[in-house]
Amino acid sequence: MSNPTLLILPGDGIGPEVMTEVRKVIDWMGSSRGISFDVSEALVGGASYDAHGTPLTDETMEQAQSVDAVLLGAVGGPKYDDLDFSVKPERGLLRLRKEMDLYANLRPAQCFDALADFSSLKKDVVAGLDIMIIRELTSGIYFGEPRGIITEGNERIGINTQRYTESEIARVARSAFELARKRGNKVCSMEKANVMESGVLWRRVVTEVHEAEYSDVELSHMYADAGAMQLCRWPKQFDVIVTDNLFGDLLSDAAAMLTGSLGMLPSASLGAPMSNGRPKALYEPVHGSAPDIAGQGKANPIACILSFAMALRYSFDLGEEATRVEQAVEKVLADGLRTADLIGEEGVSPVSTSAMGDAIIAAL
Amino acid sequence: MSNPTLLILPGDGIGPEVMTEVRKVIDWMGSSRGISFDVSEALVGGASYDAHGTPLTDETMEQAQSVDAVLLGAVGGPKYDDLDFSVKPERGLLRLRKEMDLYANLRPAQCFDALADFSSLKKDVVAGLDIMIIRELTSGIYFGEPRGIITEGNERIGINTQRYTESEIARVARSAFELARKRGNKVCSMEKANVMESGVLWRRVVTEVHEAEYSDVELSHMYADAGAMQLCRWPKQFDVIVTDNLFGDLLSDAAAMLTGSLGMLPSASLGAPMSNGRPKALYEPVHGSAPDIAGQGKANPIACILSFAMALRYSFDLGEEATRVEQAVEKVLADGLRTADLIGEEGVSPVSTSAMGDAIIAAL
Ligand SMILES: CC(C)[C@H](C(=O)O)[C@@H](O)C(=O)O
Ligand SMILES: CC(C)[C@H](C(=O)O)[C@@H](O)C(=O)O
Repeated sequence: MSNPTLLILPGDGIGPEVMTEVRKVIDWMGSSRGISFDVSEALVGGASYDAHGTPLTDETMEQAQSVDAVLLGAVGGPKYDDLDFSVKPERGLLRLRKEMDLYANLRPAQCFDALADFSSLKKDVVAGLDIMIIRELTSGIYFGEPRGIITEGNERIGINTQRYTESEIARVARSAFELARKRGNKVCSMEKANVMESGVLWRRVVTEVHEAEYSDVELSHMYADAGAMQLCRWPKQFDVIVTDNLFGDLLSDAAAMLTGSLGMLPSASLGAPMSNGRPKALYEPVHGSAPDIAGQGKANPIACILSFAMALRYSFDLGEEATRVEQAVEKVLADGLRTADLIGEEGVSPVSTSAMGDAIIAAL
Repeated sequence: MSNPTLLILPGDGIGPEVMTEVRKVIDWMGSSRGISFDVSEALVGGASYDAHGTPLTDETMEQAQSVDAVLLGAVGGPKYDDLDFSVKPERGLLRLRKEMDLYANLRPAQCFDALADFSSLKKDVVAGLDIMIIRELTSGIYFGEPRGIITEGNERIGINTQRYTESEIARVARSAFELARKRGNKVCSMEKANVMESGVLWRRVVTEVHEAEYSDVELSHMYADAGAMQLCRWPKQFDVIVTDNLFGDLLSDAAAMLTGSLGMLPSASLGAPMSNGRPKALYEPVHGSAPDIAGQGKANPIACILSFAMALRYSFDLGEEATRVEQAVEKVLADGLRTADLIGEEGVSPVSTSAMGDAIIAAL
């Protein structure tokens, strides 16, 4: 049987640095566990724009469609701020999500014990926190038409469209209920049904799917603004949160920051099963490209390494190997190793990106 | 000269209770400071729907247009969840905002010294916090057309439209810059210009207004998801934040919760000057209608009382009287008085809504 295939897209900013460390873990899987991958690499985002004038070439798009899983670093940076909207680095990532139809974005917000003190929240509010935000990723205001900047009279007008079909809502709701069954069996759905009709439909369809197929799971609804509040107040009240593309963008970032573990958090973006039974999948850290520290060996590779662990679990059914990687990460943290982003005021000195990667390999 | 006029709209849930306490402060202003108002009262939200079948009658709308300032309690509640979208309690509030053209919603996120321990954030992160979020309130996805739930084939589709004209952006940007000049002289504008064209226009117009009229103010831009993160991480980095209607809804609620002082936070929604020079204005607490505790004397009236203080300052140019009210609030807090929402685990026993109101009058 041929090896499973991985496409690595390091992207911009700290993307390439953290991906170098992920490579070490991939190599270790082959040499020490006999689990080998066929790895290819390509450009995305600003890096692709610089080389090819587009944030994602058709060739790379095709490659992404044909591999078993894609690992992405990060895209974007101030260097590209003045680019035309259609070739911004982010368009590359958005095209991948859309064309691979990766509708369920799994974003765990987890607080690592060793880092509970590092959160801006009180320790008892975040210690042991483990919630999963499922963000719809292929529709909503990110992709709706009409969109653009038009001129009427002598005024410019900016337009975007939020548009959700019931099947788009239903399929991501199913992902959330399925996941909840393997966790705390609780789903909270968030929208603004008090203000937006698309939120009214969202709430209705989630309720219908729940009644028809998942009545064993506990379902609640919350307005997204109240959700933002409750995440800040007492995040442990949640198990699985399901929400739309735009709310999910803000809420999952806020949740990630609350854990104090932003540089630690992975994500998986999953679509429908391919002919080999594996879901279409892209894995990426929740953090961005952090251009301010790029190239200085300061970046934290853990989020990206844990994204690879998610790939082991969700794409390759290698849950045990995933746990092995996660435990190695916990071990180096417990040993006191910290990259610069994890240093508070205590005066610990930080280790470099590559030293962190090496320590994780050693712990494996 | 005739007295300035106030329209009181208590609304739903805890709205009527907290407004009763505001009345005490209004009466005190007349009897002790010789500052009298002509006060009228009407229904809004679910209360209006129950009486008139609409969340806001045309008559009340006209009244709101003709007074010097409107004070609103809160609207909404689960009782009205199944109402048709067009008569939901929230439509009453949204109609007021839209028809009075209250484009600048000022939402201070302030941490009261006596309550710093009460935040879910660490004390050093929030103590002394004082930021002002200016939320655009009359446009964006709250009001854009087309909107609704349509059926295509046999699928329901939910649609909303985000639509911003450059003059809508420019006027709220001006409000933010004007306010910043009276504070820390710093504005951070938040959007998703990396994903939404309406965000691209937002950033462009804010930048143009800045360059042409307010280059003395420090301006920065942040993506709204990063903004949500930074608010959770280190909110003191901000002075004034300006953002659109939907982002402002989430971000200001998160910011309010972070302060630990949600039941304390007022807001002002301001429009263009009327013929008497006063701005069109509506004042309301940031908290909602809290139907779960309504009618039990548990509600905290302070946010609504401080909203009246904002009215004194912004509508009636009575900054000194406003400060007097604010200081009375600080005094009762320093004295240890707490409504139920402000009780942590320390075992202080709470005072009732009306006892809190009376204590504030006594402190005045
Ligand atoms: C980079 C950007 C396009 C992206 C988004 O807005 O979805 C990012 O913020 C994320 O959350 O993955
Ligand atoms: C009640 C609701 C319509 C309102 C909003 O979404 O604007 C509220 O959440 C607010 O922030 O004032």
